[in-house]
Amino acid sequence: MNIYNKVSQVRNQVKEWKRAGLSVGFVPTMGYLHEGHESLIRKAASENDKVVVSIFVNPTQFGPNEDLEKYPRDLKKDSLICAGAGADLIFHPEIEEMYVKDACTSVNMNGLTDGLCGKSRPTHFSGVCTVVTKLFNIVPADKAYFGEKDAQQLAIIKKMVEDLNIDIQIIGCPIIREEDGLAKSSRNIYLSPVEREAALVLNKSLKVARKAIEAGVKNTSDLKGLIVDMIEKEPLAKIDYVEIVDSRSLKEVDFIEENVLVALAVYIGKTRLIDNFTYFI
Amino acid sequence: MNIYNKVSQVRNQVKEWKRAGLSVGFVPTMGYLHEGHESLIRKAASENDKVVVSIFVNPTQFGPNEDLEKYPRDLKKDSLICAGAGADLIFHPEIEEMYVKDACTSVNMNGLTDGLCGKSRPTHFSGVCTVVTKLFNIVPADKAYFGEKDAQQLAIIKKMVEDLNIDIQIIGCPIIREEDGLAKSSRNIYLSPVEREAALVLNKSLKVARKAIEAGVKNTSDLKGLIVDMIEKEPLAKIDYVEIVDSRSLKEVDFIEENVLVALAVYIGKTRLIDNFTYFI
Repeated sequence: MNIYNKVSQVRNQVKEWKRAGLSVGFVPTMGYLHEGHESLIRKAASENDKVVVSIFVNPTQFGPNEDLEKYPRDLKKDSLICAGAGADLIFHPEIEEMYVKDACTSVNMNGLTDGLCGKSRPTHFSGVCTVVTKLFNIVPADKAYFGEKDAQQLAIIKKMVEDLNIDIQIIGCPIIREEDGLAKSSRNIYLSPVEREAALVLNKSLKVARKAIEAGVKNTSDLKGLIVDMIEKEPLAKIDYVEIVDSRSLKEVDFIEENVLVALAVYIGKTRLIDNFTYFI
Repeated sequence: MNIYNKVSQVRNQVKEWKRAGLSVGFVPTMGYLHEGHESLIRKAASENDKVVVSIFVNPTQFGPNEDLEKYPRDLKKDSLICAGAGADLIFHPEIEEMYVKDACTSVNMNGLTDGLCGKSRPTHFSGVCTVVTKLFNIVPADKAYFGEKDAQQLAIIKKMVEDLNIDIQIIGCPIIREEDGLAKSSRNIYLSPVEREAALVLNKSLKVARKAIEAGVKNTSDLKGLIVDMIEKEPLAKIDYVEIVDSRSLKEVDFIEENVLVALAVYIGKTRLIDNFTYFI
């Protein structure tokens, strides 16, 4: 498995594969891979002849007070995980290879980016849309794989691909969790043992909400109340948002009448974690 | 020569050509083709095995008070010109085929889009960048051809392609003029005979400026003064802008020390015309 850091190298390799009639799957990541990423790579390997994984901590999707500098990195371990899960190529560019000094073009979206994580991270999704557009142009794959943990990101990328006629199929893959229910995340490494325990409240409160919906509660302010009450009982937790939105438009709904995304972001100490589930009518 | 109006048709055809090892040139247009477009198509045909011309009057690049509704259209004549100049395929989509109802993604740029035409047409280049990105995703060509008459557009598209890693080579082609010097434009059809005569002042004033530069005048405010004075003597003309900018950054310069773009936009009656030349040091 090769690790390339130049745009031209990875593009030429992928185009060579395509010319040879091979299908290509692509898994864009920020590295520090965990079993969530691994599941994406395995899925890509099962559906394509070749698999490219990109590892790039994209500065333009971090806000000024976010964790860009300390975002965890471990290329050696990442390479082993990629190879083990069936990747054929890692694209690991430097920032200068991805952004020329006078870069001034961005890809932007209205609506889908306004709520949820977009509210507290106002420039985040412009950074995501721009880098993913770039990566799709560098790696002209047939299919690209994204985790459902970043539910808003997945919805946004699907919409961007539709709106810009990008010739790639977007595949969402289920959230992978620790045995005790915590969603796998590169940021879990920031948690102290005590915070790690407190972080269980994200998934636990979502489970309570799901049970309530299944028991017939359809009023979303009641449901959000259940989640908020439970999280507020956890002293180390501070809510960023708890939202129930239409799963496609990501617009808030008062009653559950269509498929909904129940999503939350919670600070555990200084670490911002997200989790969600989609309830299908 | 086929005329396709569906994204899937043209994409499949171009991908088939590419799989067969053929090179593809692409000429995006808004139709009502003149000898300027024809020169782009001929150039594309001379450099590629296959040539696609798109004809789409893109609503998102027109401002609210601009000429979208009355923009001239003549698909029959356009088809003859395309076929005669060596095109293999016309892509002629309806607006609904290009923009889904809830489209919300755009491609934007800072800096290059601020001056010149961007000043009086503030949403224009976002519309251009977005539709050209879409067209490049629909028609995965090797090279795309644009006229130097839209000098700012050409500079913007080159920068966008660099910034977004779009895998297509942008070729600029020289301005084609009427015998008396008026730059060919689909909008020339709006001019009455008297306005047609008055419109010559655009090119004439540029010629005077070029001669002055060649004679040693390097101060751009003097040069702009020459152009402005000449245009203001023409009663039917009203200046939108006269600018002298760095040919790459499009930033205004006080003295000519690098290659510069001398560009102007002038209303002749109600018709806004543009013209320019690049002076190479």
